[in-house]
Amino acid sequence: MSGFKISTVAIIGVGLIGGSFAAALKQAGAVGTVLGAGRRPETLKEAARLGLIDEIVSYKDAAQRADLIFVAAPVGAFEAIFKELAPWLGPKTIITDGGSTKQNVIEAARNGLQSRIAQFVPGHPMAGSHEKGPQAADAQLYAGRRVMLTPLVENHPQDVETVRAAWQACGANVVSIDPSQHDGVVAAISHLPHWVAALFMEYITHSDDAALKLQTAGSGFRDFTRVAQGSAEMWRDIFIANRPAMLAELQAMKAVFERAEHALRENDAQWLENMLDHASKARRDWQDLGS
Amino acid sequence: MSGFKISTVAIIGVGLIGGSFAAALKQAGAVGTVLGAGRRPETLKEAARLGLIDEIVSYKDAAQRADLIFVAAPVGAFEAIFKELAPWLGPKTIITDGGSTKQNVIEAARNGLQSRIAQFVPGHPMAGSHEKGPQAADAQLYAGRRVMLTPLVENHPQDVETVRAAWQACGANVVSIDPSQHDGVVAAISHLPHWVAALFMEYITHSDDAALKLQTAGSGFRDFTRVAQGSAEMWRDIFIANRPAMLAELQAMKAVFERAEHALRENDAQWLENMLDHASKARRDWQDLGS
Repeated sequence: MSGFKISTVAIIGVGLIGGSFAAALKQAGAVGTVLGAGRRPETLKEAARLGLIDEIVSYKDAAQRADLIFVAAPVGAFEAIFKELAPWLGPKTIITDGGSTKQNVIEAARNGLQSRIAQFVPGHPMAGSHEKGPQAADAQLYAGRRVMLTPLVENHPQDVETVRAAWQACGANVVSIDPSQHDGVVAAISHLPHWVAALFMEYITHSDDAALKLQTAGSGFRDFTRVAQGSAEMWRDIFIANRPAMLAELQAMKAVFERAEHALRENDAQWLENMLDHASKARRDWQDLGS
Repeated sequence: MSGFKISTVAIIGVGLIGGSFAAALKQAGAVGTVLGAGRRPETLKEAARLGLIDEIVSYKDAAQRADLIFVAAPVGAFEAIFKELAPWLGPKTIITDGGSTKQNVIEAARNGLQSRIAQFVPGHPMAGSHEKGPQAADAQLYAGRRVMLTPLVENHPQDVETVRAAWQACGANVVSIDPSQHDGVVAAISHLPHWVAALFMEYITHSDDAALKLQTAGSGFRDFTRVAQGSAEMWRDIFIANRPAMLAELQAMKAVFERAEHALRENDAQWLENMLDHASKARRDWQDLGS
């Protein structure tokens, strides 16, 4: 137990990410009341039924009553949400978010919050699932997981500490990082795998012998494509939001693929074995923080 | 219980694939004695200690004594193994294999077995693991899994039936298919994911911020890269063996990737959403035969 306690938290968008944050704070005894707001009444009702939120409120009520607001909607909706919250925001209310990109979320926050920008502490929990919605919420989702904060020069250090403490109460491992470095890192290790898995799935379903291929696919295919099950809307927003970093990653990755294709074309067994051996060792040495 | 029973089976290469075939036949009560042969004495001793094989024998003894020989070595070693077996092969002995490619294995068998080619029934069990060696062998590895046979015109139908029955005794779902169609199918749904996962791992470890990226990587990265842990030697042989089909697949997949990169560059959110939605639905609709 971290001893951290906050009176009222509002979740904007009570799906997997927002609902799990609520569930984790509740399980840690770190929150008094959890308010839920969002654009889908049925999702909010389901979240209330599951006990993730205590009250369904408007954006205005969330802004006026919460000590901490967690925005966990698709990143494409952030600017509109910030604009709805801004006029009603309590002077001490802190806003944080779960958006998968940070430079464009910060831009949306500057546009939406204007003079209240100092109250926004950007964050990104590196956890997820191909499951979605409040029914997928899990108090353990963030246990041992990395959360990256990208604080603004305008932020009050005490507000950054509050957001850090809230995530630590959820069991997360919190680091602070520069927003552009954040966007490059997540493009490489999170967005790129999703991009490739989805396009691979698309490729297979449109190829010759697609039915036979899908019947024949086994456990390697299953693991490799698992992330492709994610929400199309969420991932569309992520790719668009992180476009410059994604395009840079795609260029850099292509060079590695071209080199390998050349080796295969030339029958260069030694190059292939060295690469495969290096990749295999690197993957075996990798420690999954969350497992 | 299928009622299938064979007196003596020899496994050439008692690792994950060969060891699991032995374990599954034993568990089904479908085999009398299992002989093990191979180039690594320590692997054979471990397989004997684990009870996967009853006796360690020479290739010559395996060829003379077995009713069914299962070749489960890296495909690059097949021709040499066939050459060692050929002079001693009993007139009724059937050989089958677990090689991941079929056209080049058949060529190796024709070169190695010469006039005994009719005794070779090519096969490929679509099951595996990133674990390797006899200690990873599992009697359930093939349960519900697809096994593809690519019979030769020279094969006696009764021999094909025997190989089919042996796999069915292991719980596998057996189909017969043309060797070139087989190689295209496995290039797409098995070899391509391994190729991409290994190169992605290689790309990440050589990129800027590699340490931070690896620390930040989560469950999506974990699943996407899992297959990259496989044996470098085995996969080198697979890629070289299935080179024509792999190169064709790489070209076809690249066209899909180029189209998507164009959409991202042009900010075409609708194209991206349609693609992601289609991929997500296709992956959700996919039924994993082995799970």
